[in-house]
Amino acid sequence: MANIESVSPLAPAGGFPNLPVIDGVTFATHAAGVKYAGRTDVMLAELCAGSVIAGTFTKSSTRSSAVLDCQNKLGSDATGGAAILVNSGNSNAFTGKYGREAVDKISQAVSASLQINEDRVFTSSTGVIGEPLKWERITASIDVLKAGLDAGAISDAAEAIMTTDTFSKGASAEVKIGDELVKISGIAKGSGMIAPDMATMLVYIFTDAKISQPALQSLVSAATDTSFNCITVDSDTSTSDTLLVAATGCSAAAEIIPDTPEAAAFHAALQSVMLELSHLVVKDGEGATKFVEVQVTGAKTDADARKVASSIANSPLVKTAIAGEDPNWGRVVMAVGKSGATADRDLLSIWFGDVLVAENGWVSPDYSEDAGATYMKNEHIVIRTDLGLGDAQCTMWTCDLTHGYITINADYRS
Amino acid sequence: MANIESVSPLAPAGGFPNLPVIDGVTFATHAAGVKYAGRTDVMLAELCAGSVIAGTFTKSSTRSSAVLDCQNKLGSDATGGAAILVNSGNSNAFTGKYGREAVDKISQAVSASLQINEDRVFTSSTGVIGEPLKWERITASIDVLKAGLDAGAISDAAEAIMTTDTFSKGASAEVKIGDELVKISGIAKGSGMIAPDMATMLVYIFTDAKISQPALQSLVSAATDTSFNCITVDSDTSTSDTLLVAATGCSAAAEIIPDTPEAAAFHAALQSVMLELSHLVVKDGEGATKFVEVQVTGAKTDADARKVASSIANSPLVKTAIAGEDPNWGRVVMAVGKSGATADRDLLSIWFGDVLVAENGWVSPDYSEDAGATYMKNEHIVIRTDLGLGDAQCTMWTCDLTHGYITINADYRS
Repeated sequence: MANIESVSPLAPAGGFPNLPVIDGVTFATHAAGVKYAGRTDVMLAELCAGSVIAGTFTKSSTRSSAVLDCQNKLGSDATGGAAILVNSGNSNAFTGKYGREAVDKISQAVSASLQINEDRVFTSSTGVIGEPLKWERITASIDVLKAGLDAGAISDAAEAIMTTDTFSKGASAEVKIGDELVKISGIAKGSGMIAPDMATMLVYIFTDAKISQPALQSLVSAATDTSFNCITVDSDTSTSDTLLVAATGCSAAAEIIPDTPEAAAFHAALQSVMLELSHLVVKDGEGATKFVEVQVTGAKTDADARKVASSIANSPLVKTAIAGEDPNWGRVVMAVGKSGATADRDLLSIWFGDVLVAENGWVSPDYSEDAGATYMKNEHIVIRTDLGLGDAQCTMWTCDLTHGYITINADYRS
Repeated sequence: MANIESVSPLAPAGGFPNLPVIDGVTFATHAAGVKYAGRTDVMLAELCAGSVIAGTFTKSSTRSSAVLDCQNKLGSDATGGAAILVNSGNSNAFTGKYGREAVDKISQAVSASLQINEDRVFTSSTGVIGEPLKWERITASIDVLKAGLDAGAISDAAEAIMTTDTFSKGASAEVKIGDELVKISGIAKGSGMIAPDMATMLVYIFTDAKISQPALQSLVSAATDTSFNCITVDSDTSTSDTLLVAATGCSAAAEIIPDTPEAAAFHAALQSVMLELSHLVVKDGEGATKFVEVQVTGAKTDADARKVASSIANSPLVKTAIAGEDPNWGRVVMAVGKSGATADRDLLSIWFGDVLVAENGWVSPDYSEDAGATYMKNEHIVIRTDLGLGDAQCTMWTCDLTHGYITINADYRS
């Protein structure tokens, strides 16, 4: 039986990384008692004047008030400063009109204390749903948070936003723009959960790049599609998922202009941070014991490649087979078949790692069950499926489906 | 830990029902040693001359040769007799060109022995995939099967087609057409599974009704949409799912003509048999301890109602909450949100049984967690979601997601 108190076996060996300080951003955390006792549960990030903010959000039609509020504020005038305030312990989701009021109260309090426009205050809430958020405990903490703001406190921020995460998550990159270094540091939380919480994913990335809001938004949207939109733990979608990227413009580098080599270099660096954070979220998936990369090649269209990858990565039968270290390629064939994508059974090839398992619609003549079983003992499993129909491809990441998942989500009562 | 040897706790208390004999159909079973030892694994049903056969099949793009073969034969000339031959132990799926050959060999042998056209022999195979089907063992059994054909042996047939089912499944109905009785008897298998098998669902229904093949096909397709296409155990789809309905025309009743009151009465009876068999499949779902009915009302369109019902019924978080007897309505909200259907958070209402849990985008003021928790202890759970947007509705059936599911699918190696 999985022990859900312990750290995920897939957590990075080195612990939380040393993230570069980003000029123009300071962090503070506080134990406001939103729900938890004896741990920090509010984090404030203050951004210097001129910072631009881009974001991507859950597509859920029942998304929370904080998400709707962030979406409305993305394009607001960036002349003044800005702030991000996040609480854990209560998601303020499905709390009716009251939810909207809580978001406003918190935004107003941050606005007043930091002397910034209210439409420059971005909030997120994660934790229990359907219960009123005790926003007074948060607004009462703002001045304490303001007094504690510190450029070096990003690791504290990563801890304050955790709910049932078993480790805090950070990633960084540096990229040369002209002769100057641009830095990117990001933190994330997700996706352990205990009833009745949902596996909300929250991601905050900071950079000192100079870039316009529309240009940043375009890069963030593209990078989301191949990182956070390519991971799945259990196919369920939170009502509160939020990713914000703030660019302070404080680096000495020139402004990043779309469609230039500099933009491409920055995009690659941003993408690497987002990819690493998204993988950390999967590695903290409920009950996960294997990190699984699902590669699909040879699809007719990009949409088909994504459908097949998603079908394999979300299949309970594929995921339980991986948990059982069973090289069960038949379940991969099944998942291809049910995906709705164009596929020809007799053109399919399937590899587990470098082991060619199936080709031409049947098991490969060179395949040995021993080779397959040995490969499945790895902690990082790559399943590649070639559809043999075209050039389109997609890669998704997931984890296995174990007794630990059931224990976390079925055995614990609210 | 679930004991997968035991019979599902949701199995009907009375055991296999007493099914009426259908004039014009005889059954035989045999232990051919396809894979299993010491149990029957082949069943033959012979149908009298003039019998018409309708069917519905998996939509998988990697479906098995037997499925493709049945689809091709549905419209064949019904003047002569017909036969259905099913083996368990090996699905003959993903076996390349060899799979096609095995289907032909079996069809030819049945055709020769029973003196019927080859295009009137319908076959199904269920069991391990990717391994060559030992068709010689089946063809060698045909004459023994022929010698044993018996109108009363349908319960033996229901046992011979089982793989990892924990109980055999049957259902029947009778309907008056004019002054004469028309009878319907059906059997099904699914959907327990042990690696590396897939949860193939096979259904065979027999009636003495007189009806044309196109008229029967139209009724079967419609009834499938609201029965077998509305159940889910784990969202995975077999490459071999097959439902065949054979009408012998041997009853004394007049022919059933489309769009008449008689056709409506027959449709209702057929629908009831299909619904009951589909529920029995869910009740034998891997690790199932609860039978769950997901009702969606108030949707804008039929497609939206189906999307929401499917999203709730397939959500691992909803299904683990039910396993934990947790009235976790937040996860239902989540599943509505991710479904892709039009929904307004603040118009949603959710009931567990008769307990109104949530309304107007928040928990109901009258809801008590105790009432919810007490309801969740039932074996048959009804979750109703009203979207408050229109008149469209859909009902789906599923089971909970338990440690038993993981045990069956992850802990057992091939």
